[in-house]
Amino acid sequence: MADRAAPLARTVLQQCVHARLQVCPPGQDEQEEQWVQIGPGMVIYVCFFKGATEDMLPQMVSSLLNQRLCEKPSGGLGSVLEVGGSVLLVPQATLGGRAKGRVMQYHGNIAKEEGRRLYQCLVSLCRAQVEGAAAEVEVAAGDGAQGRR
Amino acid sequence: MADRAAPLARTVLQQCVHARLQVCPPGQDEQEEQWVQIGPGMVIYVCFFKGATEDMLPQMVSSLLNQRLCEKPSGGLGSVLEVGGSVLLVPQATLGGRAKGRVMQYHGNIAKEEGRRLYQCLVSLCRAQVEGAAAEVEVAAGDGAQGRR
Repeated sequence: MADRAAPLARTVLQQCVHARLQVCPPGQDEQEEQWVQIGPGMVIYVCFFKGATEDMLPQMVSSLLNQRLCEKPSGGLGSVLEVGGSVLLVPQATLGGRAKGRVMQYHGNIAKEEGRRLYQCLVSLCRAQVEGAAAEVEVAAGDGAQGRR
Repeated sequence: MADRAAPLARTVLQQCVHARLQVCPPGQDEQEEQWVQIGPGMVIYVCFFKGATEDMLPQMVSSLLNQRLCEKPSGGLGSVLEVGGSVLLVPQATLGGRAKGRVMQYHGNIAKEEGRRLYQCLVSLCRAQVEGAAAEVEVAAGDGAQGRR
């Protein structure tokens, strides 16, 4: 009974003209609220499931950054590495939700600390991969705490 | 060989403080650009796959509008029908994409005209369902043309 393998990660890509993410809410320990923001490019929301490991991250980063989704000035589509632009990585645990009746459940999600570690590793790999890109690419990221809005 | 059934629709819900959608780009037939916008609530991106039919829409609308995702003033979560707010429905064919190498393919997507018909039916059903809601709920929608940004 070969069932389709459960997913280890889920991402949603959203192209944007600009985007900003609150990475530190106001009022905690008298800190001011902090935001990261990007210009034209894409927001990548990421959620890891139980069983996800570091091994899978290089392939994941390669798929995300090399996918031809960005409009080239000359027409046609190129990857963000070819065309240039900003990438904002957002940890988004809610992508792992499954509806049980009227309530969302997150039983498939990876443990919080493990998810944060994988997310930070993903960010590092993305930053490493844009270093050699032909076009100018910037990677911005949340602080790894899933669930902030 | 019972494989997991292929999905008939995919949605992504994004909670928002405000959102606006360009429903008519500028410059076509000398028309001005047109936008729909909403205040606090949620954006629901919708994509239909081959095999989707009208029969499934009432259940889909009920799931989307009754899911407990909105923060109640008193704390805890309630549905948008209970808490109130705006719902912006956006046809988003790109949700049906599958990566083949570096290129996205949309072979599973329903035919454009059929998708537009189902989307418009979904909008009507959402509007009908919010009529009797306890709280004030507004439904805004794109024009059904998938792929606009």
